[in-house]
This record gives sequence, structure tokens and C-alpha cells, in this order.
Amino acid sequence: MMPPSAPRGRPRDSRAHRAILAAATELVTDVGYAAASIGAVAARAGVGKDTVYRRWSGKAELVYEAVFTEAEACPVPDTGSLTGDLTALLEALIQEFSAPAAAAALPGLLADFAANPELQARIRSEFLAPAKDGLVTVFERAVQRGETDPNVQVDLVLDTLAGAVFFHIGLVGVQPSQQLAAQLAAIVGRGIETR
Amino acid sequence: MMPPSAPRGRPRDSRAHRAILAAATELVTDVGYAAASIGAVAARAGVGKDTVYRRWSGKAELVYEAVFTEAEACPVPDTGSLTGDLTALLEALIQEFSAPAAAAALPGLLADFAANPELQARIRSEFLAPAKDGLVTVFERAVQRGETDPNVQVDLVLDTLAGAVFFHIGLVGVQPSQQLAAQLAAIVGRGIETR
Repeated sequence: MMPPSAPRGRPRDSRAHRAILAAATELVTDVGYAAASIGAVAARAGVGKDTVYRRWSGKAELVYEAVFTEAEACPVPDTGSLTGDLTALLEALIQEFSAPAAAAALPGLLADFAANPELQARIRSEFLAPAKDGLVTVFERAVQRGETDPNVQVDLVLDTLAGAVFFHIGLVGVQPSQQLAAQLAAIVGRGIETR
Repeated sequence: MMPPSAPRGRPRDSRAHRAILAAATELVTDVGYAAASIGAVAARAGVGKDTVYRRWSGKAELVYEAVFTEAEACPVPDTGSLTGDLTALLEALIQEFSAPAAAAALPGLLADFAANPELQARIRSEFLAPAKDGLVTVFERAVQRGETDPNVQVDLVLDTLAGAVFFHIGLVGVQPSQQLAAQLAAIVGRGIETR
């Protein structure tokens, strides 16, 4: 394949791009996901709505990038036990889901993703992909230690962990306790251990 | 206390009430939660918007009643084992969450509940209350059989079960397999068994 001779369209104005992402994060935190319209985000960023729509197809994609894709990738935990590793993964997930902008955005954002087949397909392939990569590594080590068997259904375990954290914190609105990660790891982790 | 001498306001027109609930269920199934406005529900039911607003404070409460409170109460399962009982409870939850109107309504409905503190407080006290009652009975029997200990955190187990089913079916959009309830009961149930 030939290398592209020049980028198509105008070069991305990264200052405007960053201003829009910051405005989206602030606005979602301040007024909630439903009230954070593209027009309000554009006004807060000091750009026109067209500038936003040239970069994102809609509010869900913009808010998703603003709130989640800036998060630092955590190293995969390696505590020496399946329960320890799951606790560490859950701690990261709880921290990510309970950050103010994420907590404000998540229920409405996921509802918009679920209502659109093209976006829904990206929940597993993009939104959950970093967490799945970590879980796969954790399970490979657990299989080597004989703690679990190779047939564990990673996607279903991930939906259980993410669903539990989302339901408990994002929907019901419980303030996560210090023990939450360990408690969830005990509920789920022992269920996938080899006896 | 004296019995009320007469109902306050005009008596509820139960035919209109049922027509509005049926219209809400149909419309959510046909066009999705976001597009099912109160105006569109009223038009389909052949009533004015005022008639809807006299009965429900908003779309979330109307759709919640239309989609969920008509569901028949299931008897609490009593299979003789914790895993068997959890599997039966999960089967009912999966069936409830994957019914067409519920699947169409749930992500947007829960997002609206989560965004409003007064409605959010009702997720646990109303929406999850029947499932919790069943779970409490199942755990009481499991404690008597020595399968689990009395300190199991019922709310957290319930959030895990409901969150897993909601995330897997409602958000990611997986068509539930025949084995899903048993698989989730194995992942979660063994985690709360006494060893």
C-alpha cells in the first residue's frame, strides 16, 4: 500500500479539539448528560457547532471520548492470586466509573450507545476492550497457577464485573466503600475458581 | 382514622389509564424509549397530554409502570440448592429484561431514573424490591442448609445479578442463550457459598 500523500481535509486543530473535550467534560459534570447539548458544549469551548460536528458524529461519541479515552491505561495487576488480581481490576473500574464526569455521563451515555446499533456494537469492541485485555491476562496467569480452568467465559465475567459496578454506583448511586472491590471479587472470583 | 368520605378529585378513568399504558408499551417497542414522547403516547391512546400528566409526573414513571409493574409476580423458587434457586431467579430476571418492551425501554429508562435523585431513590426501593424479596427468602433457606453464611450482602449480590443481566442483554445487546442463567448462577453463586 502506498503511504497517504497528504491528510484528507483540513489538519485537525488540536487546540480546538482539546477545548471541546474539556468543555464536554465540564458541562456533563455540571448539568448532567441529558442537558449537555452539542450547542452548549460548543459555546463553552468558544467554537461553532459545525466545528464539533466535523469531529464527532454526535453527543455520545464526543462525551465518550471526553470522559473515557483520556484515562491512563493501568498496568495489568499481578498480585499472585486470581482474587487479588480481580480486586485490583475492580478497584480501577470503580475509580473510573465513580469519577465525577464519568458518574454523571455513564447512564445516559450507555443508553445512547444501546439505542444505536452502530454505537452498541462498539460497547464491547472499544469501551470494554481495555478491561477485557486485562482480564484475559489475569485469567491466563490463573490458569497457569491452576486456579481456574481455560474455559472460563471472559466476556460474561467482564459483563458481570462491569454490570455490578455500573448498577451499584452508576444507577443505584451508592457511594463506593473501601471494601467494595474486595467484596465483589469475593462474590465473583470464587465462582470461577477451580475447586 | 375516619374513612375518607369520598375520593379526592375525579375518579380514575381506568379505561383511559389502561389505554395510555398500552400505548406507552407499544410505542417504546416500536420507536425506542428516546423517541416515545408523552405527546406521541397520548395521541396513540386517543387522549390529551393533560390526561397523561394528571396520572404520571413524566415519561420515566409512565414507561416504568407500563413495562414493569404489570409483570406477574413469580413464586420464590425452592429447588433445594442455592445454585438452583439463583438459576431460577436469574431465569425470571433474564425473561423480564429481554421482553421486547423492557429491552427497548431499559437503558433510557434507567438513565432517566439515575439522573433524577427522587426517581433514583426508587430504583432500589421499588424497581428492585420484588427481586430482593425473592433473594432474601432464597438466602434464608441457604443459610438453614448451611450453604451460605448469614452475613451475605443481599443488596450487593442483587446489584451483581441485575447488573450482569442488564449489562449483557440491555446494554451490550447479547441475545440470551439457554445456558445464561446457569452460567451466571455458577459465576456468582459459588462465590457466596460457604466452603
